[in-house]
Order: sequence, then C-alpha cells, then structure tokens
Amino acid sequence: MISKLIDGIRAKKAPVVVGLDPNLKFIPAELMDEAKREVAGRESVYDEDLETAAEAVWHFNHDIIDAVADLVPAVKPQSAMYEQFGIPGIVTFWKTIRYAHEKGLIVIGDVKRGDIGSTSEAYAAAHLGKIGIGGTKTKVFDEDFATVNPYLGSDGVKPFIDVCNENDRGIFVLVKTSNPSSGELQDLKMADGRAVYEVVGEYVNEWGKLSMDGEYSNIGAVVGATYPEQGKVLRKLMPHTFILVPGYGAQGAKGSDLTDFFDDRGLGAIVNSSRGIIAAYLKEKYQGFGPEGFAEAARAAAEDMIEDIGTALEKAGKSIR
Amino acid sequence: MISKLIDGIRAKKAPVVVGLDPNLKFIPAELMDEAKREVAGRESVYDEDLETAAEAVWHFNHDIIDAVADLVPAVKPQSAMYEQFGIPGIVTFWKTIRYAHEKGLIVIGDVKRGDIGSTSEAYAAAHLGKIGIGGTKTKVFDEDFATVNPYLGSDGVKPFIDVCNENDRGIFVLVKTSNPSSGELQDLKMADGRAVYEVVGEYVNEWGKLSMDGEYSNIGAVVGATYPEQGKVLRKLMPHTFILVPGYGAQGAKGSDLTDFFDDRGLGAIVNSSRGIIAAYLKEKYQGFGPEGFAEAARAAAEDMIEDIGTALEKAGKSIR
Repeated sequence: MISKLIDGIRAKKAPVVVGLDPNLKFIPAELMDEAKREVAGRESVYDEDLETAAEAVWHFNHDIIDAVADLVPAVKPQSAMYEQFGIPGIVTFWKTIRYAHEKGLIVIGDVKRGDIGSTSEAYAAAHLGKIGIGGTKTKVFDEDFATVNPYLGSDGVKPFIDVCNENDRGIFVLVKTSNPSSGELQDLKMADGRAVYEVVGEYVNEWGKLSMDGEYSNIGAVVGATYPEQGKVLRKLMPHTFILVPGYGAQGAKGSDLTDFFDDRGLGAIVNSSRGIIAAYLKEKYQGFGPEGFAEAARAAAEDMIEDIGTALEKAGKSIR
Repeated sequence: MISKLIDGIRAKKAPVVVGLDPNLKFIPAELMDEAKREVAGRESVYDEDLETAAEAVWHFNHDIIDAVADLVPAVKPQSAMYEQFGIPGIVTFWKTIRYAHEKGLIVIGDVKRGDIGSTSEAYAAAHLGKIGIGGTKTKVFDEDFATVNPYLGSDGVKPFIDVCNENDRGIFVLVKTSNPSSGELQDLKMADGRAVYEVVGEYVNEWGKLSMDGEYSNIGAVVGATYPEQGKVLRKLMPHTFILVPGYGAQGAKGSDLTDFFDDRGLGAIVNSSRGIIAAYLKEKYQGFGPEGFAEAARAAAEDMIEDIGTALEKAGKSIR
C-alpha cells in the first residue's frame, strides 16, 4: 500500500494529505440549515441534532473531496470528529471513506487505536481488514492506512502488521506527536541517552522489515511538523519508514521547516493539514471566497500548501522524482 | 463518579467489573442462528453478516447483564469488539451501555482513546460528555468512565479531565498494561532510575488532584493484574488514584496476586475479568451449564471471582469496609 501512496504523491507532485477533521465551527451556517431541513423531512432513527450535524459534515466532506481530489493523493479523516456525533457521525465517517475511494483517493484513518493483542486484532480487522462471520469475510470501515498508538508495545502493534500483510494495507505508528506536551513522555531520556521517541522509532524501523513494499515499508511513523529537529534524527534512524507529518499550518509549521523529513528524492514523508485547508475560508487570506465558497477556498489553500512544500523541497535540492 | 463506583463496590462487596468483550467465538451457535433469522426477516440497512453478528452480540450482552447485575457494580465494554462489526456493532455498543445503565450498572468504556487537545476534546464529549449542536447539548455514548492512552502527554488528557469535572465522570489512564510486551515502552528506565510507568503514574497522581471526589480521584489508572510488583509500587506512588486492574483469569492472575493493588480497607482497586466470566461456559469447570446456560455460567464464574478476591483480601486483613 505504501507504494500506491508514493505513486500518488509522484503523479500529483504533492506530498500532501488533507485532514478531514470537520469541527462544527468550520461548517458554514447554510450547510447546517440545509441539513436541518433534510433531517426534519425524514424519520429520525437517532437524536435529531446528532443526525443534523452528521448530515452537514457529510455534505461538507463531500464538497471538500470534490474540490481537492485531483490535487492530493490522500485524505485523513480523524475518527474523534465523527464519534462525537454518535452513530450518525460514524455513518458519515464510513460514507466519507467510501466517497474518497470512489474519487481515487487513499484514505488514512486517523484512529490512533492500540490495545492488547486480541483486541488490536479486532481494531485491525475493523479498520484495515475483513471480519470473519459464519464462513464469510466482510470488509468493515476499509481504510487504506490507520494510525496506531505504540504505548502497549509489540503485541499491540503486530496484529495490525499481520492485517497489513494479508490485505495490502499500512499503518502509521505514533512516534513523536505534534502537540505541545508530546515531550512529557516521548522526550524522556533513558539511562543510555536515547529518548523514548528514539526507542519507539527503532521499534518502528524493526517492525517495518515485516512489511516492506518497495523501498519503503507499509509500517510508517507519525512525527509532528512542529518538531523538525526530532524529524531529522528520526529520518536517519528509520531509513525505510514513511513519515506522516501532522502540524503544518494551523499548528505552526511551514514548508521550509520540513525538508529534513524527506529523503533526497523528495519522498519518505507526507504532510497533513486539516483546519488550514478545510477551514481556509475562515482565514483572512481566503475570506474572499465566503462561506459559500468553502470548498474553492480549500482548493486554493491546498494549492498554496503544495507550492510551499514544493518550493522548499526544490531549494533543498529534493524535488520529487 | 468514583465515589459512586466505590459505593457500588461496598454495597455488593465486589471490587469486580465484568468485561463485555464479546468475541464471536464466545457466542453460542443457537444465538447466532436466532440473530440470522431475525436479520433475514427485516430490511437490512448495512451488510447482513455485520447486522447478524451485532444482533447476536446484543442478545448475548443483554443476558450476561441480566445474570450479573446484582453481583457486580460495573461492566466494561471494549470498543474494538463492537467496531469490528461496523455501524451495526457500534449500535450494539450504544444499546449495551443504555441497558447496563437501566440495570443500575456503572459503565466503563474501554476505548483507550487519546489525541492532541482539540481532538481529545471531541473524544471526551463523545464518550463522557455532551456535544453542543446549534444551542442544544446532547449526550452521545454516555459512558461513566473511559480508558485513556497517555502517550501524547497532558494536553491529550486534560480535555478528558475537564469533561469529567463538568459531567461527574471519570477516566482510567493506561499506566502499566497487562499484556506481555507492555514493558517494551512502559518499563524503559530513565537516567534517574525511574521507569516510564512510574513517570506516568506520577502524572496521573498530579492530574488526579484536579478531580477529587472523596478520598479518591475521578482520574484513575490502569495497572495489569499480571504485574503485581509494579502494582505495589504504583499503589504507593498514587495514593488517591483508583486502579482498574485487567488481566485476572484468562490472562493468568488470581486473587492472591492482587491484594497489593488495594488499600487497607479493601478499596482503591477494581478487577476486570472478560473471557473468564462471559465465556465461562466454554471452560471445563462450568461446562455443565452448556451453551444454553452461558449466562448462568457467567453468573457462577462472577460469584467465584468475587469469592476468590474476597478471601484473598480477608487473608491480607483488607476486607472491604
């Protein structure tokens, strides 16, 4: 699966993934009103407010996907933003994945799951594999990649690797996250001088050998754009590990901070932006699009981000090839 | 909320939670057949196999809850086991929580979520709080407690604490998990001699001060029954932290291993068993109940577990009071 993602990055010259984290604050009022009318006109199974929010998010995602599908190789829905609207929200998560696939996009499910062995097996089946029920095998949420939390160690991660191998899927394991307090645990220094994130990086590099797909492994890592120094260290420590880089834009990082996450051919990393793209119409720079032009604003912001990263890679002698 | 859990433990003399992790292997064939007929007789919205599995799990949980509701204070559904059956599975997760509440049980959602701040906020609202939609506030999954992964540090945990304080809810933060490879990260030794799980334990103890509810805090910890030495250390390190202890029974621990997790009055900890109770009818000891007596077998296994732990606490001079 990682080779498919790399093909997409090359074809579109865009090591960029659009994060679909549709906070209600980002949804134009008109879309909410429309969803309200839609829900009022049918029989509700669940709570009407949850159904309204989920319906609005679905229309929002649909239009964002249409606007960026030819620009980027992948989208990354964040499961919390759907779980918060209960069953209707998770229906929207599922519909969003299916629609992104229809539009030829790779889907990274940002679910950050991870548990003891038998439980990780169930999460892996749910998000990346198939579940066996009475002799048949059924796909469930069917993402292409999922993010995985490493706190439980190998036996929480290996079931995901098995499912990746059986179904040609991939994962990104949290190594060094983009948030301000990520260092509280991840930067703790061992007696031998290594930080926890380096130890986790070494594990990810080892786990990666179990699922190679060309030069890179299906077992990737998450390293925040907000920590470029650590990104540089980890790029060297994990030579065959593809890096998913959150934290661009709204969280503070820009293209020129990120060139060390990439290999010499401009590969090895894909940068996520969520708010910075999907809520671009709320920023001064794109406010001319207005709420009704939220999808066009997202397209413009995606183009700007691709150019920013492309220019930075070019300056660093790392243009994508 | 922790005081409510303690009241339940005292009233039932049972520091025991029944884990609702309904692997399909545990579901009697008759229940699956019945679910199949039920699904065949109605219009399916999703995949029929997923609906069948979810329906069977719902009936299974319903009968287990009926069988143990007067014995134990709480149940702990594990979200992976529901997510694996897609939307219909999550509907069963939601129905199970509602039914357990109807029966007076406290619900610990074993969801092991955790993310950057704004995303943890959404998870906290989904599982423990309310979500604001157009001026109204709506409860979503409405568990009483949720488990939380600490890998992202304070700003991934604090949004959960805020929601606990606003809604009288609680969390259990993963500190030292029960699985064989938990030590790969959690036992790493710092330069100052502390292990990662001790550092996390100290954080949990500090976070706990933000949500005290009587002698204990609403911010609890998960420490595996399979690591009694670490449990002893952590009990002292986190004097006001209630401990959720998985790993009893099927994972190997027994009552006499666990007394150091408790305080002098037999409080401070609650022990989980999943397979050991809900799949008891598959074990030699309870096979006389047969598949049709799965719920009665679960009741017998719960009674045996309560007695085993009660006897161990008594011997240690820690009878519940």
